[in-house]
Amino acid sequence: MTTPRFCEDAVVKVTIQDSYPESAAHCYGCGRLNEVGYQVKTRSNGDTTVTEFVPAGYHTAFIDSTYGGLIASIIDCHSTGSAAIFSMQAAGVEVGSEPSPRFVTAHLEVDYLAPTPLSPMRLVGRATEIKERKVIVETELSVDGEVTARGSAVLVKMHDE
Amino acid sequence: MTTPRFCEDAVVKVTIQDSYPESAAHCYGCGRLNEVGYQVKTRSNGDTTVTEFVPAGYHTAFIDSTYGGLIASIIDCHSTGSAAIFSMQAAGVEVGSEPSPRFVTAHLEVDYLAPTPLSPMRLVGRATEIKERKVIVETELSVDGEVTARGSAVLVKMHDE
Repeated sequence: MTTPRFCEDAVVKVTIQDSYPESAAHCYGCGRLNEVGYQVKTRSNGDTTVTEFVPAGYHTAFIDSTYGGLIASIIDCHSTGSAAIFSMQAAGVEVGSEPSPRFVTAHLEVDYLAPTPLSPMRLVGRATEIKERKVIVETELSVDGEVTARGSAVLVKMHDE
Repeated sequence: MTTPRFCEDAVVKVTIQDSYPESAAHCYGCGRLNEVGYQVKTRSNGDTTVTEFVPAGYHTAFIDSTYGGLIASIIDCHSTGSAAIFSMQAAGVEVGSEPSPRFVTAHLEVDYLAPTPLSPMRLVGRATEIKERKVIVETELSVDGEVTARGSAVLVKMHDE
């Protein structure tokens, strides 16, 4: 196992999902208050973001490969979290210093390049566009260093309540 | 509730997922042998395909809306199933008469047009390309007749074992 678990190498230790206001923390994918959900956690890591996720044994597509819908799900929440991180950084606000903005997905694309082993996966996100209300995030998903899927997502900022 | 449940109106009653060979029936999204999975079921309905799915209460994005990753997941399995149906139909083979071919997703896109209520959803698929080893499926996802998401998927046929 060469992949660091749970983003132990990330520069910023606080996760964006732990910074969401309570009203936005019930998502099945990444809400800290959704006890049966995936509890995706994303951290800032310099000019990238990083998410790590360990699939369960039943998250199969075929034997020993990870279900593509789960891959899309983790990319989705990693992307919304990454958008919030990139947005805060662009505004000069430190993640964790205040409730984070909440972005939602307008468009999601996933390229499945190869079967993804049913093993801990690591997602690295980069912003290709950062505007006040719209962020585009490109993601590479890898297992043990081999990239098996790529994601691209357009995220839009929710209006403040 | 105006949406027919479980595709009761579909012309063909047998589901493509119940026609997958056992080795291809363990998918978390649509494998009939995955007891904790979503058990997505897709039927032929004339020149379209139809899937219906009832989310659980915890499949939330925000309160009363459905998690986008779940929407991508259901579109994914609906699309692989639809590709198998369209492929069989193009070959003049009746669904259920023999084990179906198994398609996997190479590329998936989802446009989230509006929040999807946390209610039974209906997906209708159409093929825009049918080749021997590649099918493209466009999907409309609706709740109570309102389209809230659109999917587009490129599916490739697995090699026979």
